[in-house]
Amino acid sequence: MADGRTTPLSVFLSLLLLLLLSAANGLVQDFCVGDVTASDTPAGYPCKEVSEVTCDDFVFTGLGTAGDTSNLIKAAVTPAFVGQFPGVNGLGISVARLDIAVGGVIPLHTHPGGSELLVVIQGTICAGFISSANDVYFTTLNKGDTMVFPQGLLHFQINSGDVTAVAIVSFSSPNPGLQITAFALFANSLPSSLVEKVTFLDDEQVKKLKEVLGGSG
Amino acid sequence: MADGRTTPLSVFLSLLLLLLLSAANGLVQDFCVGDVTASDTPAGYPCKEVSEVTCDDFVFTGLGTAGDTSNLIKAAVTPAFVGQFPGVNGLGISVARLDIAVGGVIPLHTHPGGSELLVVIQGTICAGFISSANDVYFTTLNKGDTMVFPQGLLHFQINSGDVTAVAIVSFSSPNPGLQITAFALFANSLPSSLVEKVTFLDDEQVKKLKEVLGGSG
Amino acid sequence: MADGRTTPLSVFLSLLLLLLLSAANGLVQDFCVGDVTASDTPAGYPCKEVSEVTCDDFVFTGLGTAGDTSNLIKAAVTPAFVGQFPGVNGLGISVARLDIAVGGVIPLHTHPGGSELLVVIQGTICAGFISSANDVYFTTLNKGDTMVFPQGLLHFQINSGDVTAVAIVSFSSPNPGLQITAFALFANSLPSSLVEKVTFLDDEQVKKLKEVLGGSG
Amino acid sequence: MADGRTTPLSVFLSLLLLLLLSAANGLVQDFCVGDVTASDTPAGYPCKEVSEVTCDDFVFTGLGTAGDTSNLIKAAVTPAFVGQFPGVNGLGISVARLDIAVGGVIPLHTHPGGSELLVVIQGTICAGFISSANDVYFTTLNKGDTMVFPQGLLHFQINSGDVTAVAIVSFSSPNPGLQITAFALFANSLPSSLVEKVTFLDDEQVKKLKEVLGGSG
Amino acid sequence: MADGRTTPLSVFLSLLLLLLLSAANGLVQDFCVGDVTASDTPAGYPCKEVSEVTCDDFVFTGLGTAGDTSNLIKAAVTPAFVGQFPGVNGLGISVARLDIAVGGVIPLHTHPGGSELLVVIQGTICAGFISSANDVYFTTLNKGDTMVFPQGLLHFQINSGDVTAVAIVSFSSPNPGLQITAFALFANSLPSSLVEKVTFLDDEQVKKLKEVLGGSG
Amino acid sequence: MADGRTTPLSVFLSLLLLLLLSAANGLVQDFCVGDVTASDTPAGYPCKEVSEVTCDDFVFTGLGTAGDTSNLIKAAVTPAFVGQFPGVNGLGISVARLDIAVGGVIPLHTHPGGSELLVVIQGTICAGFISSANDVYFTTLNKGDTMVFPQGLLHFQINSGDVTAVAIVSFSSPNPGLQITAFALFANSLPSSLVEKVTFLDDEQVKKLKEVLGGSG
Repeated sequence: MADGRTTPLSVFLSLLLLLLLSAANGLVQDFCVGDVTASDTPAGYPCKEVSEVTCDDFVFTGLGTAGDTSNLIKAAVTPAFVGQFPGVNGLGISVARLDIAVGGVIPLHTHPGGSELLVVIQGTICAGFISSANDVYFTTLNKGDTMVFPQGLLHFQINSGDVTAVAIVSFSSPNPGLQITAFALFANSLPSSLVEKVTFLDDEQVKKLKEVLGGSG
Repeated sequence: MADGRTTPLSVFLSLLLLLLLSAANGLVQDFCVGDVTASDTPAGYPCKEVSEVTCDDFVFTGLGTAGDTSNLIKAAVTPAFVGQFPGVNGLGISVARLDIAVGGVIPLHTHPGGSELLVVIQGTICAGFISSANDVYFTTLNKGDTMVFPQGLLHFQINSGDVTAVAIVSFSSPNPGLQITAFALFANSLPSSLVEKVTFLDDEQVKKLKEVLGGSG
Repeated sequence: MADGRTTPLSVFLSLLLLLLLSAANGLVQDFCVGDVTASDTPAGYPCKEVSEVTCDDFVFTGLGTAGDTSNLIKAAVTPAFVGQFPGVNGLGISVARLDIAVGGVIPLHTHPGGSELLVVIQGTICAGFISSANDVYFTTLNKGDTMVFPQGLLHFQINSGDVTAVAIVSFSSPNPGLQITAFALFANSLPSSLVEKVTFLDDEQVKKLKEVLGGSG
Repeated sequence: MADGRTTPLSVFLSLLLLLLLSAANGLVQDFCVGDVTASDTPAGYPCKEVSEVTCDDFVFTGLGTAGDTSNLIKAAVTPAFVGQFPGVNGLGISVARLDIAVGGVIPLHTHPGGSELLVVIQGTICAGFISSANDVYFTTLNKGDTMVFPQGLLHFQINSGDVTAVAIVSFSSPNPGLQITAFALFANSLPSSLVEKVTFLDDEQVKKLKEVLGGSG
Repeated sequence: MADGRTTPLSVFLSLLLLLLLSAANGLVQDFCVGDVTASDTPAGYPCKEVSEVTCDDFVFTGLGTAGDTSNLIKAAVTPAFVGQFPGVNGLGISVARLDIAVGGVIPLHTHPGGSELLVVIQGTICAGFISSANDVYFTTLNKGDTMVFPQGLLHFQINSGDVTAVAIVSFSSPNPGLQITAFALFANSLPSSLVEKVTFLDDEQVKKLKEVLGGSG
Repeated sequence: MADGRTTPLSVFLSLLLLLLLSAANGLVQDFCVGDVTASDTPAGYPCKEVSEVTCDDFVFTGLGTAGDTSNLIKAAVTPAFVGQFPGVNGLGISVARLDIAVGGVIPLHTHPGGSELLVVIQGTICAGFISSANDVYFTTLNKGDTMVFPQGLLHFQINSGDVTAVAIVSFSSPNPGLQITAFALFANSLPSSLVEKVTFLDDEQVKKLKEVLGGSG
């Protein structure tokens, strides 16, 4: 490095100024923390002004607490998707925590917008997915095991051990969506006759689950 | 345009040669007709050599014939996906024909890899989809009506008229996939106890449909 | 499924509430119906609020009516692109109807933003495209035949039969664009001398077509 | 559902056959388990034949074991990228385990190909990243805390507690890459004079670290 | 930095080995130099083995020499697309040199696969493009001026000065394609009657240019 | 072309009107000139109204003037990224001019959001990049030579000749970002102890460069 460093601040001024100004204007996009109060777009939320972004925007603290599993499925999903964690906006990734009590289950579901990767943190989980060819891929996962569920395919997770199971699941999208099949079928106003027609289920079965899951029609 | 056109072929030779040679070598990619005998990749099949490509590669003639609806669902899907129509490889689009006889139904299903756009060509179709929030969007479509089903969401089509219904459905992917919920649940070896656990369905119902749809376990 | 279903609504409350609230806030993006009154973005229009979305947003009824072919080209294009059909916003697909009377033609054109897939519904169409290597791929399509035109390449459709031809054309983009070569050359203020320079066309020809197609300069 | 289920297998034959055959041919792409012995492509590895895919392809068991931290940085990265875990090929996601002993550090680095999302499983980690505007975003993360590091930006993780820290880090790419700045500068044959020129570091410092990190020149 | 650097090479061995081995196996994809002898894919060519990649793969030396403008258009395009410069494979960029002699022209053309950005290095260029709405955007560019031509739209460049013009044009794709309208219309076997039908050009004009540009039919 | 051209303007009215109106409404997206006063999105800035777009939006005139190299690095970067040149918004490309005086250097840096392609316009440049495997690819480039630097990898450019070097560098993104390693390490408030911990640099070295480059801590 050359001598004459007596006025480094001044000689760097023009270059630094350019960089700092453009960042201050938000014109360099290293990231795009979502402004979730604005209208969403197909690519994600508009960006919060860079000048108002702080480190806290990139941190989510909700995954340290166990979800409440005192419900019918004895399980809980704690999402850190873009709606809860605007720092992931536009970054192609998000995360959630699964708590599954003994006997609990994450019912059959899909994520329309992304693939899922599960890492078991505690306990034992029976997990699987079903392909378009109706082939079933399922297995038992122990602590530290990882399984990937390809985008859009039906999959499930069941606690197959004797302690509460905990998993970290990440997604290839900041907004993967979540469609639980049983809820989609029975927890809304889709007429029973239509449900039966498109699923081959019996009338009695459909009406019973509509009552259990709060659907009508 | 200038005079002196006495030797146009020669004066254009260098430029034309460049273009023709590079095309002959397949080095300009206007299209990538799929070589479906080679291994697929995440972006689609390797390209057939341009020198072997003919107009027929871009034409599919199978949608002119009605599908056979003499089956349980009284309906037929005739796909022109990349597997049947290699010309769409890499082009982000594909198509299929639906034939739904009176009383027929395309059962509840998803396309993991793309959105669907349906145009009714004949008859009347009751069609709908269910969102992640379990909201139901369904309506009756007549000849010429169009409906779009967003990627990965559960949807269905039912003939709600008194003649066979025909529709052209296009997809935002050359390989959208197709997962029929009832087949995914009942037409494979996924153990009944697991199916019941992840769907809340009764044991009797599951075993009955497994028998109907050819599943085991 | 376990016993004790006496209070299913209450036990599911927390989980359902999470899902319903996040959807009500528009924080799960299953779809993004375009708000075409807002500024477009490179990925499409901002999303209409989910709470204001109805099934009608996903339905387009304009393709059931024949376009008016009483014009110079004896043909009509009825588009259901995002501008006319905001439900396709962000979904990577759109559609249009072609009507081509006897003797009619869809002149040479490109879609800068997407590939096109044509299905003949009625009549006979001579269709083709030209590659970067100046190779021509053209053929005669009958009812039910399908042809794909790769993104950005010049293509055309001509009624080569003796009845009005009708086709459904879908696109791999909600906003594929449409650039008709003759209009681009002759239906604007680009000076004739420039047109001649960049196309090799004769002055007389250029001026004649500028007059026909309403161009100036 | 209608009566007359006496021959369900036969009536479903044509439809099932279509689906099963196309899947057997690998012509429906629900997933693309990477054949890492074949040449990579810009979109990932060619797909293993679907008929040879088993559930094991979607499972990775290496993250359950602590990495060996008996090295200079007192830390270890155990990756489950596509090279180690071919099931994530084409799915836009991968994962790794970090073990950082007391006093250990994951040195300053970038992932050229993806964003990173870290979840602390055990211990306390001081983590941060630096933006193009040279702004620093860093904080202390405890068990259950999550931080996202936007694609391509310099970031680091340091054990700031008194027990070994463990984290699960997921990436928005099956092959995010990893460029450790100190290794890039000092663990290769890039001539010292060039390193000094492009980093402003002193000759003595560069030569010292080249020796420590195994570089030459 | 801590003391005890006596065995740095050994202590780093495990970590370095992991990195070096995975790179040697090509399992980390920093780049994907194209193997243009293999079949192309929709995402680009398969990658050359990393162990066989040298710095020369990332360097192209052909743009330093003026193209031969002794032809009808008095212009030359020297491309460094993936076919000529395999180092850009999968990187979303490529480049070319334009030489336009006095009176020369790059005729009206499109790039089906990418946007173009032109920088004038020498001389004066009249450049423009035409939108889908048939609006014309054209201007005169001097040395150092830059103009961008959006993907798929018709555009042209003319030497409007009195010295040879030189420009560097870069593209948002390694394989943007090039479709010169006059060649597409007249330099192939597309029957004259079809050309006339789809362009509104007169028979005499079409036949004249087919003869000039080497077309038939 | 048919006879009876007496009323061409009227007969084309309906078709032209459709095209012109939709363009006037901004509903056809040929381009999306950035409104950089609005909030950015992950896909780029909202579009300026098409009716307000002029040819000037697609032209940038700042690259014709040499940058000021009278600074410590004896070099200047003049960017035409989306912030300076809104016409490239959404088009996947941007450009910059490099001026490097004798003895000057563009210090080691990355572009988090895109690959770079450099063309030497004047002088001689020693340029190189470093891969994830810590392999170094560097060489000497003369006038007309081109080198590509893959996305996210560390690279540098040095004037290795005896006249000022000038280069045009284009990027595969309208907003590639720029992270200069020395600035990221020393030109901010990141505490010296952290810098030392994550880089292995000596305390004296870090503090010296923090003073030179204006950092604190």
